Amino acid sequence: MKAISQNADYSFRVETCFLPGQFPLYRPDMGIVVIIDILRATSAMVAAFEHGVKEIIPVSTIEEAQQYIGRDGYIAAAERNGEVVDGFAVGNSPLAFKAMDLHDKTIVMTTTNGTRAINLARDARKLVIGSFLNLTALTDWLLQQNDNILLLCSGWKDKFSLEDSVFAGAVMDRLLESGKFGVEEDSSIASKYLYLAARDNVMSILKAAPRRKRLKELNLLDDVKYCLTPDQARAIPMLRDGKLVKMPV
Amino acid sequence: MKAISQNADYSFRVETCFLPGQFPLYRPDMGIVVIIDILRATSAMVAAFEHGVKEIIPVSTIEEAQQYIGRDGYIAAAERNGEVVDGFAVGNSPLAFKAMDLHDKTIVMTTTNGTRAINLARDARKLVIGSFLNLTALTDWLLQQNDNILLLCSGWKDKFSLEDSVFAGAVMDRLLESGKFGVEEDSSIASKYLYLAARDNVMSILKAAPRRKRLKELNLLDDVKYCLTPDQARAIPMLRDGKLVKMPV
Repeated sequence: MKAISQNADYSFRVETCFLPGQFPLYRPDMGIVVIIDILRATSAMVAAFEHGVKEIIPVSTIEEAQQYIGRDGYIAAAERNGEVVDGFAVGNSPLAFKAMDLHDKTIVMTTTNGTRAINLARDARKLVIGSFLNLTALTDWLLQQNDNILLLCSGWKDKFSLEDSVFAGAVMDRLLESGKFGVEEDSSIASKYLYLAARDNVMSILKAAPRRKRLKELNLLDDVKYCLTPDQARAIPMLRDGKLVKMPV
Repeated sequence: MKAISQNADYSFRVETCFLPGQFPLYRPDMGIVVIIDILRATSAMVAAFEHGVKEIIPVSTIEEAQQYIGRDGYIAAAERNGEVVDGFAVGNSPLAFKAMDLHDKTIVMTTTNGTRAINLARDARKLVIGSFLNLTALTDWLLQQNDNILLLCSGWKDKFSLEDSVFAGAVMDRLLESGKFGVEEDSSIASKYLYLAARDNVMSILKAAPRRKRLKELNLLDDVKYCLTPDQARAIPMLRDGKLVKMPV
């Protein structure tokens, strides 16, 4: 491991927060928050905007989402533990969203981890949605911002998630390269090294953990491959008045 | 990143917990807990046992440690934010302990992170102290155990610590190699990859983070180098009735 190279005179910070529970420790002075839930909430959100959805309302509970089942112009989506919740037509599958007619629709969505992270950080000056799907579009936009950036990993049931952290490292790598941004936290440095270790074969990071074996058992491997393939979208969802909309807003 | 290789038929688990705050999530079914606070509490503890100390009593507060100042047979040690607390002769410097006459003495010790992690996990079936100093001795012993093992990183003020995680990865690497142990958590896999990235030059991981710049400013670089040099000790401290003693007990 070489010392991480960064411009000593950087203007703004970019940091990786591994867990929603750690957010209060990282929050001070961080203006822009990027929400990351690679498998699969934030990937699904980016895919939905890329395929014409008007807006997404992230909600914390299944009950809130249920109120929108069957309502004209709305798609109610709910996922828990990797599966579509009973009574809902869709959960957090980006491929399922792609197969639907989303034009001018509003998705109301609740997921195990991702929508929780969004609600936790909803008071950020700017809150945007990141995934491998919009990696280049997102980093292009972030590089233009004059503000500190927090990459907030959603994790899995309050525990560290490898794919979220690897993605944060991918963003980190590009932002540090610019010289405009620098890091101060060990977690940020670690995310960059995890990305460097994973970048040649992101799919391979799937092959160990039981949680991903579970996705395999649920026949979601196509979804997983899609979620790990960079740069399939230019859409950057941003939170406005409690709703995600596509930039520019 | 290649998929982590592990024996599919492992007998016991070994997992890395990045933060004391995450301990309740990792605790179930983990019999042996290894406490890790590389800079510098657990390194200092191992060094003290290697140099003849009889026992170490980890305490949470400065007030508890203060009661032992000047008491015959006791050495009161207190560190906060990398510095010796006013009124104490020593903090958590392994080199300072090495320079003292420790024979038949009891150290009463409080530190910013490490002693807190010990107190959090004090009900474990077995609690032992890990550092680069006793890496081989510790892993030799762990490999003989028939129990699940949790590598508990102390972190830095509730945040992720790179050197703690790299050390956990070093232990992880050796235990997985045996085929006897396997992992289920993403954090465990990440720690192994961080170790693989760092192992050729552990010192280099120091060069980025402000916390370590602070140790440098405090003229503690000799201490840091010592803490990152593997296999200078065979002592494995173990908790017994609230006190750390040297194995075999």
